Amino acid sequence: MIEVRELVGVGIGSGVVVGPVLHVSRQAASAPADTPSTIGADAELARAREALASVSAQLRERAAGADESTRDVLEAQALMTDDPALLDSVTVKLGAGVTAEKAVSDAFAEFAAMLADAGEYFAERAADLHDLADRAVAALQGRSTELVIDPGHPYVLVARDLAPADTAVLDLDRVLAFVTSEGGPTSHTAILARQRGIVAIVGAPGVEGLADGTQVIVDAERGRVFADPDAAELADAESRIAARAAAADVPAGPGALADGTPVKLLANLGKPGEAAEAVRLGAEGVGLFRTEFLFLDRLTTAPTVADQQESYREVLAAFPGKRVVVRLLDAGADKPLAFLNPGEEENPALGRRGLRALRATASVLADQLTALAAAQAQTEAELWVMAPMVATVEETAFVTRAIHDVGIRTAGVMVEIPSVALIADRVLSRTDFASIGTNDLTQYTMAADRQLGSVAALQDPWHPAVLRLVKEVGAAGAALGKPVGVCGEAAADPLLAVVLAGLGVTSLSMSPTALADVRVSLARYSLDDAAAIAEAALAADEAADARQAARAAADTITAGR
Amino acid sequence: MIEVRELVGVGIGSGVVVGPVLHVSRQAASAPADTPSTIGADAELARAREALASVSAQLRERAAGADESTRDVLEAQALMTDDPALLDSVTVKLGAGVTAEKAVSDAFAEFAAMLADAGEYFAERAADLHDLADRAVAALQGRSTELVIDPGHPYVLVARDLAPADTAVLDLDRVLAFVTSEGGPTSHTAILARQRGIVAIVGAPGVEGLADGTQVIVDAERGRVFADPDAAELADAESRIAARAAAADVPAGPGALADGTPVKLLANLGKPGEAAEAVRLGAEGVGLFRTEFLFLDRLTTAPTVADQQESYREVLAAFPGKRVVVRLLDAGADKPLAFLNPGEEENPALGRRGLRALRATASVLADQLTALAAAQAQTEAELWVMAPMVATVEETAFVTRAIHDVGIRTAGVMVEIPSVALIADRVLSRTDFASIGTNDLTQYTMAADRQLGSVAALQDPWHPAVLRLVKEVGAAGAALGKPVGVCGEAAADPLLAVVLAGLGVTSLSMSPTALADVRVSLARYSLDDAAAIAEAALAADEAADARQAARAAADTITAGR
Repeated sequence: MIEVRELVGVGIGSGVVVGPVLHVSRQAASAPADTPSTIGADAELARAREALASVSAQLRERAAGADESTRDVLEAQALMTDDPALLDSVTVKLGAGVTAEKAVSDAFAEFAAMLADAGEYFAERAADLHDLADRAVAALQGRSTELVIDPGHPYVLVARDLAPADTAVLDLDRVLAFVTSEGGPTSHTAILARQRGIVAIVGAPGVEGLADGTQVIVDAERGRVFADPDAAELADAESRIAARAAAADVPAGPGALADGTPVKLLANLGKPGEAAEAVRLGAEGVGLFRTEFLFLDRLTTAPTVADQQESYREVLAAFPGKRVVVRLLDAGADKPLAFLNPGEEENPALGRRGLRALRATASVLADQLTALAAAQAQTEAELWVMAPMVATVEETAFVTRAIHDVGIRTAGVMVEIPSVALIADRVLSRTDFASIGTNDLTQYTMAADRQLGSVAALQDPWHPAVLRLVKEVGAAGAALGKPVGVCGEAAADPLLAVVLAGLGVTSLSMSPTALADVRVSLARYSLDDAAAIAEAALAADEAADARQAARAAADTITAGR
Repeated sequence: MIEVRELVGVGIGSGVVVGPVLHVSRQAASAPADTPSTIGADAELARAREALASVSAQLRERAAGADESTRDVLEAQALMTDDPALLDSVTVKLGAGVTAEKAVSDAFAEFAAMLADAGEYFAERAADLHDLADRAVAALQGRSTELVIDPGHPYVLVARDLAPADTAVLDLDRVLAFVTSEGGPTSHTAILARQRGIVAIVGAPGVEGLADGTQVIVDAERGRVFADPDAAELADAESRIAARAAAADVPAGPGALADGTPVKLLANLGKPGEAAEAVRLGAEGVGLFRTEFLFLDRLTTAPTVADQQESYREVLAAFPGKRVVVRLLDAGADKPLAFLNPGEEENPALGRRGLRALRATASVLADQLTALAAAQAQTEAELWVMAPMVATVEETAFVTRAIHDVGIRTAGVMVEIPSVALIADRVLSRTDFASIGTNDLTQYTMAADRQLGSVAALQDPWHPAVLRLVKEVGAAGAALGKPVGVCGEAAADPLLAVVLAGLGVTSLSMSPTALADVRVSLARYSLDDAAAIAEAALAADEAADARQAARAAADTITAGR
């Protein structure tokens, strides 16, 4: 172990904790060799069947003991492992004389490739498939895939990255913080940290160098890990921890800047069951209700209007008198379960996804709108509906008309494609609101696949080019009096939230656990302060410079008081 | 046949011709059935081998009688057909019990998918693979793949689209114009039309409705086909044809607007052998010399420094005292022949291509720069070198330093990714020039794969969002006194060329055959005129509206004289 004093990564939220390091790692499966099978295709197939069945059984067993949202993830993974199409693919590959290890690994990789770019929700499942492939290969190699940790005291969990099945066996009450050497702000570790309100720093290379038991300060707000802190550093950390605890005790009012400018704080939800927790954590409504879950749970057909209506009603009923923004289905192809079918697009992220796919399957769009309008009539919530992957004025006008035509009053578009940000004045003049999806907007603006590790450094919403596009949309919204929200991961970053408000964004939607930190951060700065902080970020050369410039501008403002 | 009077499509260049229609079509292969083989994998493999060999033999035979550039294309296609990796893939697929037709079709499709997004040059080869698959399946089905046309008189060729092997057997001296129902401005038909200076309108649905022998006016400038013209329409067409012929006889001076503002007119070259023709057609230098050909011709290794140097010297020697802009290798992966290897990226267009790939393979970058510097020392040309797929200020600074360090004075970056256009001020302050690649810039700005038919309507450089980004770069170039060129297909559109000049672009690079039309078009408008025409286009909602608004503004200006 080499000595490390300070490590830099991407902080999730703005918490601070102090505790001892514990490394956690599951032995990775060796890459399957490219050597021919020595036992023949039939024997290899039997091995593959057995390995897949054991992985599936383990997942189901683990699901039985997990909380609801983890259970859903693990059960979906078991279904993927049991998929007959997967076994078909393995069988075909074995025909070429390879080993079961190689065939299983390649079959999962092909499925993952098809899935990875079919929209945000499905893309997370692609990472799951890589993990499942690892488990199946480990099972074939006769090695354990278990990760069992119980040091008997709270600890700072250090790992390369964490998969859903890993975290399912962890006792999260013992985990003070996550620190990972890999992964970014959209990794499973980051998402889990936000969901559970656990302090985390991801993508912090060098963390392997910290010995187990080392005392560290994990400072998510500054994206820093300090090893072996001295007494003064510890005292500073403890006083910040106390200040945050005090702030959290104040009852949550509506989100606002220091001068009273309202910035609505909304929740991103993936399922109706998440609504109660969002209300408890002070969400003023829902800024992004994803509807893909309705389609992923079906194996071959789209959900019925009645099924959809019931799910929408359940969410809307949790927010009487409040805004609930529902996003129309964002799938990559016309089949709800496109990942079980051959992919035909060479760059699915630049293909027929989102609204493009919905227009190609008019009945899916019509059913979804019908169900939404019916659910609206049953509840007191203020329903807003928006379309994903809109690129042009014509598409904006089309979908706005379609939403209004079923009797839904408020229609809008996602701003995920650079073109709509660049003509935001014309787009917002044809619809009621815009919601910026910073994850995809960053992907297209930087031409960097959000799922691809080798270009992950470019996938940062702090990049001045991305902020510039947000500014275009904010300015158009202000000029036309139309609301402009942000519902990407960027909204959950307490400092970036201030920058977004300074660029004209009027609502922020995030994982509910991030709401408290963002609320506190917004309340520290006036609209003029936020605009000045945003200008500092916009003028920077790179994403990291923008983050630093904003931090420096914010610190100058608070120091001047 | 239904009666059609006027058809709309995308005109290539600005020529006008009059002549009789002749439909040309090769019977398309039927889609291979998904039924299992009834003769077994071994017999299917023998059929597949024979079919591929017959396609390859036919291509080589055709290549022997073709001109140099067509010969190169056909020989490359024969090599692709003979590729052992292709046959391996077919063999594996046959193991699953399918027919040879199905296995061959799927194997080609997989290769095409890997290739399609590995940069502009390789992407054209993907379309070739689809054509090869068609030919191989037709051979398996025992049907002819020949296209033999000799009506005995000049004619307007009407087709769905044309593949390289189709055009190789045509007597192009008989072809007055191409009119296709499918394909866009980057289709093979459009590229061939530009290379040979043939009038063309592509993507004109409804053209099937014109009966053979119908007299038509093909007006590329207006993107219109008029059937059965009356005497007045014919007289108007003839007078425009005569005016263009007269203008072409004027010796080509440097490109300039009507008020004398210079707009350098440069050539896009893909091989050294194309330089002489570019000089003959009045190119003032080279705005884009693609270097991929050096790498595509090698099967397993990168070309040597000496080989590269000789090719660069050959191009530079053709332009003493003139500018030659060389683009560093734009490949999709670290292997020169990545398309023969498994692709690993789910969205190659958003992956490690261009400069990202070059930085990952430092020796390829170093060798290319060494060869370029050595070639510069042997010639009198003014060598400029630029990097593809640059997204950030840091990348700009890195590559500019690398180019300067070998003694090349002028370094620049391609503007293909929205981010660099949005921070063009900072990017241009770190390098010597920018060159806008409108094809890729449009792809990323609209999030629409330039190779994907289902989103082709979004792939239009006239879109106001794309023009807005061009304006950002033009303004930054003007403020810093740095040259800004355009080297995408947009530069070859005579009216769009005026818009680009109005947005601050100082040079245009295109297929040499487009130079004359663009030169004439630029000379009609002053810089103020061009700026006004550009403003009209920028204010439009959609690409088609922008084209119309620019045309209307231009017509108003010329009518007012």
